[in-house]
Amino acid sequence: MADPRFFERAGPFRLGDLAPRCGAQLADESHAARMVSDVATLDQAGPGQLTFLDNPKYAEALPQTRAEACILHTKYAAAAPAGTALLIAPNPYLCYARAAQLFYPAMRPAAGCHPSAVVDPTATVAPDASLAPHVVIGPGAEIGAGTIIGPGSVIGRGVVVGAECRIGPSVTLSHCLIGARVTLHTGVRIGQDGFGFAPDPAGHVKVPQLGRVVIGDDCEIGANTTIDRGAGPDTVVGPGCWIDNLVQIGHNVTLGRGCIVVAQAGIAGSTQLGDFVVLAAQSGLAGHLKIGTGARVGAKSGVMTDIPAGESHFGIPATKVKEYFRQIATLRRLAQKKGTQND
Amino acid sequence: MADPRFFERAGPFRLGDLAPRCGAQLADESHAARMVSDVATLDQAGPGQLTFLDNPKYAEALPQTRAEACILHTKYAAAAPAGTALLIAPNPYLCYARAAQLFYPAMRPAAGCHPSAVVDPTATVAPDASLAPHVVIGPGAEIGAGTIIGPGSVIGRGVVVGAECRIGPSVTLSHCLIGARVTLHTGVRIGQDGFGFAPDPAGHVKVPQLGRVVIGDDCEIGANTTIDRGAGPDTVVGPGCWIDNLVQIGHNVTLGRGCIVVAQAGIAGSTQLGDFVVLAAQSGLAGHLKIGTGARVGAKSGVMTDIPAGESHFGIPATKVKEYFRQIATLRRLAQKKGTQND
Amino acid sequence: MADPRFFERAGPFRLGDLAPRCGAQLADESHAARMVSDVATLDQAGPGQLTFLDNPKYAEALPQTRAEACILHTKYAAAAPAGTALLIAPNPYLCYARAAQLFYPAMRPAAGCHPSAVVDPTATVAPDASLAPHVVIGPGAEIGAGTIIGPGSVIGRGVVVGAECRIGPSVTLSHCLIGARVTLHTGVRIGQDGFGFAPDPAGHVKVPQLGRVVIGDDCEIGANTTIDRGAGPDTVVGPGCWIDNLVQIGHNVTLGRGCIVVAQAGIAGSTQLGDFVVLAAQSGLAGHLKIGTGARVGAKSGVMTDIPAGESHFGIPATKVKEYFRQIATLRRLAQKKGTQND
Repeated sequence: MADPRFFERAGPFRLGDLAPRCGAQLADESHAARMVSDVATLDQAGPGQLTFLDNPKYAEALPQTRAEACILHTKYAAAAPAGTALLIAPNPYLCYARAAQLFYPAMRPAAGCHPSAVVDPTATVAPDASLAPHVVIGPGAEIGAGTIIGPGSVIGRGVVVGAECRIGPSVTLSHCLIGARVTLHTGVRIGQDGFGFAPDPAGHVKVPQLGRVVIGDDCEIGANTTIDRGAGPDTVVGPGCWIDNLVQIGHNVTLGRGCIVVAQAGIAGSTQLGDFVVLAAQSGLAGHLKIGTGARVGAKSGVMTDIPAGESHFGIPATKVKEYFRQIATLRRLAQKKGTQND
Repeated sequence: MADPRFFERAGPFRLGDLAPRCGAQLADESHAARMVSDVATLDQAGPGQLTFLDNPKYAEALPQTRAEACILHTKYAAAAPAGTALLIAPNPYLCYARAAQLFYPAMRPAAGCHPSAVVDPTATVAPDASLAPHVVIGPGAEIGAGTIIGPGSVIGRGVVVGAECRIGPSVTLSHCLIGARVTLHTGVRIGQDGFGFAPDPAGHVKVPQLGRVVIGDDCEIGANTTIDRGAGPDTVVGPGCWIDNLVQIGHNVTLGRGCIVVAQAGIAGSTQLGDFVVLAAQSGLAGHLKIGTGARVGAKSGVMTDIPAGESHFGIPATKVKEYFRQIATLRRLAQKKGTQND
Repeated sequence: MADPRFFERAGPFRLGDLAPRCGAQLADESHAARMVSDVATLDQAGPGQLTFLDNPKYAEALPQTRAEACILHTKYAAAAPAGTALLIAPNPYLCYARAAQLFYPAMRPAAGCHPSAVVDPTATVAPDASLAPHVVIGPGAEIGAGTIIGPGSVIGRGVVVGAECRIGPSVTLSHCLIGARVTLHTGVRIGQDGFGFAPDPAGHVKVPQLGRVVIGDDCEIGANTTIDRGAGPDTVVGPGCWIDNLVQIGHNVTLGRGCIVVAQAGIAGSTQLGDFVVLAAQSGLAGHLKIGTGARVGAKSGVMTDIPAGESHFGIPATKVKEYFRQIATLRRLAQKKGTQND
């Protein structure tokens, strides 16, 4: 079970109650009264514990599980031990995510404002928001209902944060509008100046960055990630995007709905992503590109050209995945031939 | 116009006053009395607004602009609509930058020290400096005239910050000397230990890092960027350098004047850059290299060797730009040939 | 000498006392009474100063040194000037590291808790720990003897920090156990949620991250580095690991003892490193890999497969170092051939 120093567990739950709440159906309704009190992995779960099978490579562990109950796809049901209650779900991992949220709902600090917080008198803070020690809220800022702001975070002048957001410690927000139910992890920086200047040997001259950052509802943004505000237009992150740690998003960039950006990726200024684009870790996109809906960029790739919707690109410079692997294979083959000749 | 929650606009300005202040000349002096009250893009500007044309690919939008006035190169003057006043400039973007600064001068918090700031009695803070809530100033530190320090920033023992600097929230400075008119964005870390140790299977042994970081005048350093102090010599960033977000600069590195380092680039220990070097995003330089004045490194490149002044290098390992593109083209050609044979 | 605004020097030391404390032996015991008062580089050291020779490329400077004493390998002893006392050591850099620590022991702030710190009444803080201004310590957290916590750092609920740790300013710790003698530089983020969610077009669903981060004794972790907590298992950094700035370590990753991870490298979820693995700067490891003890990964490499113990891999995708250089050479040769034909 999760370390109780850090986590508070809810439950136990009757399977008959739990299954519909996480989008599953009991294979045998007579199991509805059985109770589960925690989640665990397939190999470690025991009596009273709920597990799941999603990745096919763990399927062989299924017959040996001692779990009280298991979430799985119907195609694996026959392989499960007789003693384990089965929760059938088309997407077992999604179902597990919902179940785990029931057992471990996100913890909430008490509502209210710590006396060490500094809140400008012109700011509007919902009465049930929670402001931790040393928070600073600037003039005219608005903090929505139920929103939590961690210690030492700084919410600048005029910033709007929607309802039910979770803002970690040491976050800096300026020149931005944040939607509802957004999670910003510790050290996130949103709204600072973009990298805009007119190069000049006598001294580069700053171009005032006059746009904002607009973050849609239900986004999650990882630790120490930086998102610069627009130069004139806004920088926009669409609803439901998940952005990992140490990501850089330049000025005027726009992300559609549900994009996934993995750690240490970077997007240069004015590039536009459609919906559900996936950028793998340490990838980079040049500026002023258009990346179509559902496109995918491989880890460490460097994208220099537009990507049509639905395509996967890899490499530096990035190219279609098939072409990329052909290049890799070609180079390996030629190098081996040379090796054979010279060794 | 810029969102008034975040920006305060100055003006309006008479064109006759504005033009010389941003380095332009009115094409028709009879337009000197016309007024402009804001800046806008070429396609969005209307009456009373100032726009500019710099990138040739927008030239075709010029005849349709409804702007009150437009900053442009003399070669485009004939294509502008008759109603638009023209401000002729050799470098229109530079001229626009200056004009935009007039409309949107950087905002200043009031001078003085917030009562929650903790200032060591041996520190020297200029009377017109501004220290935000929760700032910490260590023993012997010096903060120059007109300098602004954002909430929660920590200025360590002995650090010297020059006049008219803008230090964002949550910045950490130690073991460093910062010039005048330097902008440090939120989360910048300057002066912490470099990555110096003697490897030993019984436990790596720390090598005390006895140098400093010296940042020249007029530098701008981006959010969450890290600059380690020297191991014995100093780490030096020359005057007028622009460094983007999430950049890493190792111990003993030196940058000349006016260098540009784009987001997520990294420079390993003891590498020396001349003046006006440009490192594109996500590039990396190995340690102990010499990069000549005006050299350029492409995005995602990995530099393993010295680069002579003025050369552009790309790739991993980086090579001259012409050679790099020849390699890319060769690999593509060979892979296609193979593809043709096998598909 | 080191800038006295930032460093306090101990000493002077008798060579006869110093040598055994840093693992060296005086070549001539009659030099035991000579005194040294500082360290300096081989070319800059003068009377009263201690230097060292480690890198063979500096050996030619040895005969000209004016240093009072020099740490070196016995093989260079004959080349040293007669006036310089010699401290013979098998690993001169390691020996220098220890000597420099004697001259410049890490500075300590006074013990005690600044009145602006906010310490939960259920936390346990050792009486000789030092809590700087604006520190926040959560419920049930434990801070070990002699541990120093810098301004604005946030230690979350239940976190355990061992004895004699040095935690810089603006560090965020949650859901983690930190060993003894650990150094965390400014802006380090440990224990936040891993990047775990079930992708879903209707909205990605968060998977609660129920593990912890466990950091072993004697680790050093660089500025703005992020280490996510485990999804169920823990994220583990073994004892004696050195991690540089801006590194990303994903959930469930495990590092053995004494690993070295250089700046801006990243390790994706569930990858396991053995002991003494070295990851060079800006390298990246895919998830679910096994990297054997003593393996090395080159700068900017992208590792997609397991690496056996002791092997060095380079490139994207990474391959054995010999194969990598063969590929580079092959491509160069083919590109030149093409260049010759076409130019």
